[in-house]
Amino acid sequence: MMSKTNKGRFFEDYRLGDKLQHAVPRTVGAGERALYHALYPARHALYSSDSFAQSCGLSASPLDDLIAFHIVFGKTVPDVSLNAVANLGYAQGRWLSPVWPGDTLRAESEVIGLKQNSNGKTGVVWVRTTGLNQHDTPVLDYVRWVMVRKGDVDAPAPETTVPDLPAALTVDQLQIPQGLDFTNYDFTLAGEMHRWDDYEVGEKIDHVDGVTVEEAEHMMATRLWQNTAKVHFDTSARPDGTRLIYGGHVISMARALSFNGLANAQMIAGLNGGAHANPCLAGDTIRAWSEVLDKAETAAPGVGAIRLRLVATKGGAPFELRDDAGKYRPEVLLDLDYWALMPR
Amino acid sequence: MMSKTNKGRFFEDYRLGDKLQHAVPRTVGAGERALYHALYPARHALYSSDSFAQSCGLSASPLDDLIAFHIVFGKTVPDVSLNAVANLGYAQGRWLSPVWPGDTLRAESEVIGLKQNSNGKTGVVWVRTTGLNQHDTPVLDYVRWVMVRKGDVDAPAPETTVPDLPAALTVDQLQIPQGLDFTNYDFTLAGEMHRWDDYEVGEKIDHVDGVTVEEAEHMMATRLWQNTAKVHFDTSARPDGTRLIYGGHVISMARALSFNGLANAQMIAGLNGGAHANPCLAGDTIRAWSEVLDKAETAAPGVGAIRLRLVATKGGAPFELRDDAGKYRPEVLLDLDYWALMPR
Amino acid sequence: MMSKTNKGRFFEDYRLGDKLQHAVPRTVGAGERALYHALYPARHALYSSDSFAQSCGLSASPLDDLIAFHIVFGKTVPDVSLNAVANLGYAQGRWLSPVWPGDTLRAESEVIGLKQNSNGKTGVVWVRTTGLNQHDTPVLDYVRWVMVRKGDVDAPAPETTVPDLPAALTVDQLQIPQGLDFTNYDFTLAGEMHRWDDYEVGEKIDHVDGVTVEEAEHMMATRLWQNTAKVHFDTSARPDGTRLIYGGHVISMARALSFNGLANAQMIAGLNGGAHANPCLAGDTIRAWSEVLDKAETAAPGVGAIRLRLVATKGGAPFELRDDAGKYRPEVLLDLDYWALMPR
Repeated sequence: MMSKTNKGRFFEDYRLGDKLQHAVPRTVGAGERALYHALYPARHALYSSDSFAQSCGLSASPLDDLIAFHIVFGKTVPDVSLNAVANLGYAQGRWLSPVWPGDTLRAESEVIGLKQNSNGKTGVVWVRTTGLNQHDTPVLDYVRWVMVRKGDVDAPAPETTVPDLPAALTVDQLQIPQGLDFTNYDFTLAGEMHRWDDYEVGEKIDHVDGVTVEEAEHMMATRLWQNTAKVHFDTSARPDGTRLIYGGHVISMARALSFNGLANAQMIAGLNGGAHANPCLAGDTIRAWSEVLDKAETAAPGVGAIRLRLVATKGGAPFELRDDAGKYRPEVLLDLDYWALMPR
Repeated sequence: MMSKTNKGRFFEDYRLGDKLQHAVPRTVGAGERALYHALYPARHALYSSDSFAQSCGLSASPLDDLIAFHIVFGKTVPDVSLNAVANLGYAQGRWLSPVWPGDTLRAESEVIGLKQNSNGKTGVVWVRTTGLNQHDTPVLDYVRWVMVRKGDVDAPAPETTVPDLPAALTVDQLQIPQGLDFTNYDFTLAGEMHRWDDYEVGEKIDHVDGVTVEEAEHMMATRLWQNTAKVHFDTSARPDGTRLIYGGHVISMARALSFNGLANAQMIAGLNGGAHANPCLAGDTIRAWSEVLDKAETAAPGVGAIRLRLVATKGGAPFELRDDAGKYRPEVLLDLDYWALMPR
Repeated sequence: MMSKTNKGRFFEDYRLGDKLQHAVPRTVGAGERALYHALYPARHALYSSDSFAQSCGLSASPLDDLIAFHIVFGKTVPDVSLNAVANLGYAQGRWLSPVWPGDTLRAESEVIGLKQNSNGKTGVVWVRTTGLNQHDTPVLDYVRWVMVRKGDVDAPAPETTVPDLPAALTVDQLQIPQGLDFTNYDFTLAGEMHRWDDYEVGEKIDHVDGVTVEEAEHMMATRLWQNTAKVHFDTSARPDGTRLIYGGHVISMARALSFNGLANAQMIAGLNGGAHANPCLAGDTIRAWSEVLDKAETAAPGVGAIRLRLVATKGGAPFELRDDAGKYRPEVLLDLDYWALMPR
């Protein structure tokens, strides 16, 4: 009689080219949307109002792009990061099709890189994950790499393969949702008058507002994405009895806070990279600031692309990122690099 | 390059007759309804059951009247009360049309009164706010006045205009939802046998039950209404590190608690006035009592109107409202005056 | 003028054969489903995905079987357990028809047993409760017995009637949902490869994961089921100021945790019995283990029935249930006996 519970994969269990079908497809809808608004101060109009989304050429308001990300990410946890020591990075993330209420999402991953660490106890696994809807249409794909423990330290090291990952997507790699048209965009209803042309590369924006986070909130969010990593839920999982907040909770909080100054950065189209610089715990007050990294025109009517650094902090002054040695300052929680779509 | 974040309006930024189009329309539905039931002990049958609502002549169960109020109110915060010192009062609130799942709400306000305070540092702004659905049908309107800081104390005082606001709506000013018919009302399913005729003007009801409130709950509720006032979310926003609970959270809690004794006061039709007497903080246990202020017949079949005082407290004995000097007692949180519709 | 609030029934208010129509019907849907996923780490695929449910012969994903149970149970509280001293047991619970989004549930009960206790101050009331949908189709029935205070200790004792309740349902008493067919069951998407044939009677499974519970979560859950028992919400209701967590919250948490090892025990078909062995409070970390008590074939294609003991704990080692004297160990929260449906 074999053990019935999932112990997760260890580093030696991954092979280059492995295809992982992640479990538990999920139908999403009006409930997940409302909970997203209850858990984060999300106000981007295109994700709040069917009428507004329709005035932008869409059939209805899609679910928040980060709902798609969190659900797809959550599905990968039992197969990719149950024995992970650290979530090292993201790259080449693309939102490929909006997620509509009633859609059913599932996820699959391919192992695209492996590198045993010199300590012989851990290794780095790179996976490219794709989220698909009930029509088998991809809605999202991204590369993620994690440090995973070896179960058997004597298992032989695999041949090292490190995938070639450009620092950022180019604008022609972004997928603009079909029908998106910002030529009749209502800036008053959206909440700010600043259009794509008003932002300059290098400009930094302090989003001002802060939210002090609670245990009940981050656990509800993380469960909603069916993310089962023990450290988020179980006070006995870490030596100090704290529950580590899911990094995606910080992403969503910071993105929602960025409304104040970037209300018109409506849709997330690409994820160039991201680092969870320091742990976030209940009681921390999350603030955010952004920096404009790049701008590009797109072929869609009235739609510009803007590349943003989004930084979340738990204290300190805005616009401070690294110390003199080049390390993230201790109050920095998140350093995210993404492309958004904005009316020109 | 102008600052991109919204600093809110100061007293001198308002002009009599200003029309404010509030941002971020919001589509509401099954998710907001479920969250309302999770956040408040709400049990009024007409808002719980499609079948029950249909037996009362409606096409389905509308969203709770206070969901409409909170969403419309939340939309006004960035334009009306971001720099408010105090929320002074409400008057002349009318529910004009039920809100159905799938409706998209937006809000607009008109400045109808201005009065600079004698200290020269603040002033009172009166606005009449209207919530509208996707068909531009008004669903709610009400008057609210707030004390707002001056940004520039040297800005000249406006001509004083104080709107004439009657103490209460008359019953003929109430809008009865189209089709509402209580002649086949099922008192057993509604949870209490007391009909309109059983209540007497002057009667007081102790609603008995209490709820101890938590930080996660009031923040989720307040975010759900896209209300962004910093004091509700950020422990660094107030000198003592506490988060002030949104007054509307207390209104909804007290209204839900009033089910026990007023289960048949199904629909809120009018808001005559209201005062947030003292602050509410997490850890407080909210209780409620009501007083029948007035009764009136309506033209709708089987439908009576009842005017109620709803008082929320955080301790003390029921039915105690003011001290000998006429001030609200320190344990009183809310003193609300509203019209409800009840089967006769 | 009679008192308007519900004081609940006392022991002497029940008569054998009484039929109780419980108040406040409730329409359930996408919002309740999403909240269930936010409050519990629920991952059974049939309740997560319309596509998966359709591949099992159902028209869509039904609401979790425990949502049906909690809502029906919650409706009975004002009539059955407002003055209860203890919830003594469950028996003969059967899920009779899936609950679909949009269904409206109501509940009725019949008093089937009465026995005054020898102390003369309390008595035991047995009720058979039935949950029905908007078509008056039963969705669930079960027997529950509670110890209830007497309001008047001098009221005469009723004739003692103790219903004959078998220890477990037989498999032919279980209702298999119409159309259910597990012959094309996708074990990969479900999350585990273990089928009915892989489980042996007597086998025990440690579900490994733990969740530390918070006040805001259990109150939101309990309110969502419109359960109004004061001890769950009001810190002044119990002498020590703690809020007792609704036993059903522990049931749902343990059932969700049992996914890890019993991912394919998809549907709950019968509730043979259950005891809430010790109180659960916020801060407790809930874990779960299961024991296979019985197995039986069913007439439905590919569908096996498995009888499981589900034990929830707040500490201690797995598989420890009772002390030497036969009493539940102090760390045991729940001992539940149920039938589930599983692919063969």
